[in-house]
Amino acid sequence: MSAFIPPVGCYAVIFVSQRTAGDNGYGAMAERMVELATARPGYLGVDSTRDDQGFGITVSYWDSEQAIAAWRADLEHRQAQARGRDHWYQEYKLVVAKVERARGT
Amino acid sequence: MSAFIPPVGCYAVIFVSQRTAGDNGYGAMAERMVELATARPGYLGVDSTRDDQGFGITVSYWDSEQAIAAWRADLEHRQAQARGRDHWYQEYKLVVAKVERARGT
Repeated sequence: MSAFIPPVGCYAVIFVSQRTAGDNGYGAMAERMVELATARPGYLGVDSTRDDQGFGITVSYWDSEQAIAAWRADLEHRQAQARGRDHWYQEYKLVVAKVERARGT
Repeated sequence: MSAFIPPVGCYAVIFVSQRTAGDNGYGAMAERMVELATARPGYLGVDSTRDDQGFGITVSYWDSEQAIAAWRADLEHRQAQARGRDHWYQEYKLVVAKVERARGT
């Protein structure tokens, strides 16, 4: 897990998803999205996991709503979102929440 | 995944953890904690997953800070927390965040 502890007032983007069967280019896209997201202004950190049934949760942290909006509008990311809706995800849920407190070991 | 979409203004409790090796009573405790949490006033929903390396994320949703505080103070939950710190978790992170928006398929 990442050692990153999110600061109070930043934003958590919680993405919950059930993958369809088979890779179908998903792995390469996921790696590319991490590469792009982590290079963006306002990106703070991420924790991501998925079980052997394809059920995954990714929580990324951002310093502002503007940073989230800009990442959502990124062209490659938009292409990945569309392919996700059409092929990679059976269902998903997206939650944006403002961090009130955080602690870690 | 749960069909639950959290309402604006509720609270997400994001628990990120790396398990130690072996079960050591963890599975039974985890089931019991879900049973207790879901029965509590103010509990709204949960999504939880863990990969084959023992890295997990659980996001539970609550209608108020009071509900979170009461669940944290529950006796059986406190015993589980202590055993988690001492035995089950190699490391963990706990984030509380207030939901600003949410959508799902």
